[in-house]
Amino acid sequence: MNISVLGAYQTKFGELWQKSLEDLFLESCLEAIRDANILKKDIQIIYIGNKLAGSLSDQNHLSSLLTQILKINVPVVRVEAACASGGVAVSQACMAIASEQYETALVVGVEKMTDLLSENVAQHLMSAAGLDEQDSGLSFVGLYALMAMSYLQKFKAPRKSLAAPAIKNHFHASLNKKAHFPFCINLAQVLKSPVIAQPLTLLECSPISDGAAAIVLSSSKFAKKRQLKNGVKIVASSLANENISLAQRQSLLEIKATKKAALQAYNQAGLGPKEISFLEVHDCFTIAEIIALEDLGLYKKGYGFKALENGEVKLGGKRPVNLSGGLKGCGHPVGATGVKQIVEVFNQLKNRAGVRQTKDPKIGLTHNVGGTGGTAVVHILQKKA
Amino acid sequence: MNISVLGAYQTKFGELWQKSLEDLFLESCLEAIRDANILKKDIQIIYIGNKLAGSLSDQNHLSSLLTQILKINVPVVRVEAACASGGVAVSQACMAIASEQYETALVVGVEKMTDLLSENVAQHLMSAAGLDEQDSGLSFVGLYALMAMSYLQKFKAPRKSLAAPAIKNHFHASLNKKAHFPFCINLAQVLKSPVIAQPLTLLECSPISDGAAAIVLSSSKFAKKRQLKNGVKIVASSLANENISLAQRQSLLEIKATKKAALQAYNQAGLGPKEISFLEVHDCFTIAEIIALEDLGLYKKGYGFKALENGEVKLGGKRPVNLSGGLKGCGHPVGATGVKQIVEVFNQLKNRAGVRQTKDPKIGLTHNVGGTGGTAVVHILQKKA
Repeated sequence: MNISVLGAYQTKFGELWQKSLEDLFLESCLEAIRDANILKKDIQIIYIGNKLAGSLSDQNHLSSLLTQILKINVPVVRVEAACASGGVAVSQACMAIASEQYETALVVGVEKMTDLLSENVAQHLMSAAGLDEQDSGLSFVGLYALMAMSYLQKFKAPRKSLAAPAIKNHFHASLNKKAHFPFCINLAQVLKSPVIAQPLTLLECSPISDGAAAIVLSSSKFAKKRQLKNGVKIVASSLANENISLAQRQSLLEIKATKKAALQAYNQAGLGPKEISFLEVHDCFTIAEIIALEDLGLYKKGYGFKALENGEVKLGGKRPVNLSGGLKGCGHPVGATGVKQIVEVFNQLKNRAGVRQTKDPKIGLTHNVGGTGGTAVVHILQKKA
Repeated sequence: MNISVLGAYQTKFGELWQKSLEDLFLESCLEAIRDANILKKDIQIIYIGNKLAGSLSDQNHLSSLLTQILKINVPVVRVEAACASGGVAVSQACMAIASEQYETALVVGVEKMTDLLSENVAQHLMSAAGLDEQDSGLSFVGLYALMAMSYLQKFKAPRKSLAAPAIKNHFHASLNKKAHFPFCINLAQVLKSPVIAQPLTLLECSPISDGAAAIVLSSSKFAKKRQLKNGVKIVASSLANENISLAQRQSLLEIKATKKAALQAYNQAGLGPKEISFLEVHDCFTIAEIIALEDLGLYKKGYGFKALENGEVKLGGKRPVNLSGGLKGCGHPVGATGVKQIVEVFNQLKNRAGVRQTKDPKIGLTHNVGGTGGTAVVHILQKKA
């Protein structure tokens, strides 16, 4: 692939009651364009990742809304894929550039979720699950709790394994001013927090957040023409899907869509999991991070939880995971998450991640999931030589 | 563009209380694949156009749902652009093939709208309008009524001009068994029907419908390899956007996004409006068809209504418009509409449209609009020589 990331920006994630959907849109788009060192008029197409503006803000047709507030005159496309909306938007922007019909693309992921009561939001989120699951009264934490139970039983992992990703990711978030929860938590706090769906406690669940993230992509040709040499290459962009209902899966111990998307991505990039320097993975619930580490080929099935015991996936470790704080610590405005992962990897590869900078990173991977794994998107980014 | 339509299928449109979203999905996808004379396993990527399943059927994440019910293992992407969701889905599938990452694509537009009371559906539809318009208590018929009033006043068009598209399109629908309203209506009926928003009456508004439509696209290379010679070429695929709120437009007499999309499409195809044999245009309200005929460059501004007086846009006329019955007569399951337009043009170009077949068509154009024109998509299809 001959695609570069030229610029990237993330708004603060959190309960942003003073900011509207429009505010988040504008801030992220304009700052990403500024960061790319190009002008608004250089943008040739825009992709939007958003899941719930129609339900939570009475606002679908975001393409036209963004045209109005950004005062721009280019095609705009909104994609939706539950919590993978942002990642899918990035994948489609890559395709637009690959088609050679466009030289540049802006991708923005946005979600404004905290204006409603969280029980109402959680109900709307369930539209990303199977109707059988909705009719059974299940919630997403309930569905992931089923996976967590299976995992603990099958691999005889200790209960505290489920807490480990949250503790690590909150530590990373404590180094990230943009994070929803920029503070540390400890094991006792995790285990003492209210059980949401056995065995998962409150502090093992990602929050409901507001926020936006945007990136500017271009063809290598455009970057060369403009002498924008400090970008980062996207060397793989891969999307895979799987059945929507857990009852229609062969196993609760893996997410097939992740395995498929990862395999395709490694093939596209011509490299293997061992060459990945660091990752942003989809830790909507802590069990999801453990399973992702295995499905992405970094650890054998049943060994992912051990990586979290010995510190190798923490800042300073061999291969840090979720340096942004992940969905758990940085927050999870659903449509923004897949784009924010790219923002973090871009910043790390450009050595501008400040106090949470990982040392000399070469290759970063992002992994964004919709629902319980009905959609998975993997991108691999590489520093230019 | 080197893209062919290989197959196409439309379900019955109407109040299909005995059919679910899943039923409509499956029927349209499987029949389009069968029509293309290929196998399900030949499909390499799928695009879904849908606006309201999240709100009306508690079902977002349609990519994963379709993966499950169609039992398929390829990337699936859902796009949303209000009533242009179907057209945008087609445009993105064209891009996927243009990128040369995929040789074939299935596009399906679907909407299941009649399970709720129509006032509730109308409210959900308003999420495609500006918040200022929603807050003013406007409805889409109200917004189009503003355009209709301006048009009548500015161009001194007689009141009955607004009825003409409905009468013509119902006549076409009377020849289409798949249509929501397969029967004729006359001027007296239109004028006597209840006023919904002055001046537009009930019979000048498209209905709320259930339905789906699907098409199979391929690269020319794939079609050649498989000796699928009877396809139809897509010679232009164009998307444009405009401000979401009418108050933010320069004129109520035109839809700029349509003009832009049309101009780009004619340039891509290397032809002009005079060469179009027949069209499917977005007649959500009758005024929309009149304005579209002008914005698409077929008639000078202020002269569109005259085309409807002299019969030249009717079956048998010089350049028939909305042979399917249009949104008014055939129905308007919003996500399906943009795809259904391609189905109709495909069937006409293949001379298999039965009693409503237009004579010896060479080139057909589709025009799909979101909201009051915040999104417009134009495709041009040509019979293979």
